[in-house]
Amino acid sequence: MLRNWARLWRGLPCSVTPRNGAQDTISPMGVIHRFSHKVQGDSGAWLYAIEKNKDLAVPNPSWSQEMMEQFNQYMEMTKDGSWQKLPSYRSISDHVPEGDPKLELQNDKHRLFLRCVTEEGMGFEYAMFLNLSEKKMASLFQLGPYLEGPSGYAHGGAIATILDTTLGASAFHISHWVMTANLNLNYKSPVALGSVVRVDSRVDKVEGKKIFVSGEMWSVDKQTLYVQATALFIELQPDSFLRKARNPSSSL
Amino acid sequence: MLRNWARLWRGLPCSVTPRNGAQDTISPMGVIHRFSHKVQGDSGAWLYAIEKNKDLAVPNPSWSQEMMEQFNQYMEMTKDGSWQKLPSYRSISDHVPEGDPKLELQNDKHRLFLRCVTEEGMGFEYAMFLNLSEKKMASLFQLGPYLEGPSGYAHGGAIATILDTTLGASAFHISHWVMTANLNLNYKSPVALGSVVRVDSRVDKVEGKKIFVSGEMWSVDKQTLYVQATALFIELQPDSFLRKARNPSSSL
Repeated sequence: MLRNWARLWRGLPCSVTPRNGAQDTISPMGVIHRFSHKVQGDSGAWLYAIEKNKDLAVPNPSWSQEMMEQFNQYMEMTKDGSWQKLPSYRSISDHVPEGDPKLELQNDKHRLFLRCVTEEGMGFEYAMFLNLSEKKMASLFQLGPYLEGPSGYAHGGAIATILDTTLGASAFHISHWVMTANLNLNYKSPVALGSVVRVDSRVDKVEGKKIFVSGEMWSVDKQTLYVQATALFIELQPDSFLRKARNPSSSL
Repeated sequence: MLRNWARLWRGLPCSVTPRNGAQDTISPMGVIHRFSHKVQGDSGAWLYAIEKNKDLAVPNPSWSQEMMEQFNQYMEMTKDGSWQKLPSYRSISDHVPEGDPKLELQNDKHRLFLRCVTEEGMGFEYAMFLNLSEKKMASLFQLGPYLEGPSGYAHGGAIATILDTTLGASAFHISHWVMTANLNLNYKSPVALGSVVRVDSRVDKVEGKKIFVSGEMWSVDKQTLYVQATALFIELQPDSFLRKARNPSSSL
């Protein structure tokens, strides 16, 4: 659906506050240092808005050894500047800098769907990495026991949530405000709860306001293909989004 | 994805324990009475397994007036026996009667994805109704503030979760064990958080082990079409599912 936080990821000040239990291999200062050279914030207000929030896309004690190993490998990719880790906050408005739009959109009761479970490790644990020049993303997810569909396996909707998020994020660097118009998922193999999976996604084509994206969910060794997905996102104007936010019955 | 609880809905003993704050219009005994005449449980063990669990698809104080009014209208449809309300428990294994399969599948940490948020009204609130003879379903959902995607609107993954669940449920009466092979969603309009929506779904075609299903998400007045969806489900053999549960790397 609509993704207004997209604009906040372009040039986002990426100061990171590690969650409890950050591993030695990813020291708090190390993480901050790795991101700090990428900071492109355009105002002090942005920095203030972001710094007071807590990036949840960093290691915590619930992360399995496999998740940690993969995360460390992905962090290595960020060293030459070709990839950057994207922060993830508890709610969308946490990404919005102080100002009128934030006041208009903010609601303390709201919570980003992927962060609806607060207990570490029980829902979605994830980190997403963007390669801006190649218009592609690489993401890691660890699927917790509250995501159950069939006994022992992830719900098809949880899988769809991951694909909608990662494919949508791939469209973000094309447009700041996009809306999912189509999401088409081909499920190839069920995903056991507790699994760590990777999702590769990229922008295939841009035609006017249409952004075509595709992606796959794999086992981390890429030996098992879980899902293939395509999506179409439509670019919106920010003012139409805010108008819709004021009046849900208005057109976009 | 795989939906092993499907077999439990066919002939499921539907005793209902209302959640806190059940409205006067739906008295506890009234609800029980409405379902009790449909009980077709095939053993005392089934009845025991179900009775000790708590049906969450009943009114609670978080339900809006609109949700209650719609629910009451749907309950009216059950009076002549053409429709039946489906129960919903916190985890899939709560639907499984005592016995070896339950022991094999049960895990107290697991939670059905749609029930991953325990605070009433903050996640998915819903009730699903089945018309067995016409192979169709009518479902009601109230979308809580923890389902946010864009500011103020439901996440595309939350919408996909609802469609995967309702279309999958429509396939259940065709086969006890089915797996989603494809889910294709066309998003027409964003859904504001707090909205009550209805989802109509039906089985369109059955070809061997393939079950083709379609559905739509609407505003309750059917004036706004939010999403159109199609899905393909594949019928599985129970033994292949249990083999997979024992060894996630085995084929289905």
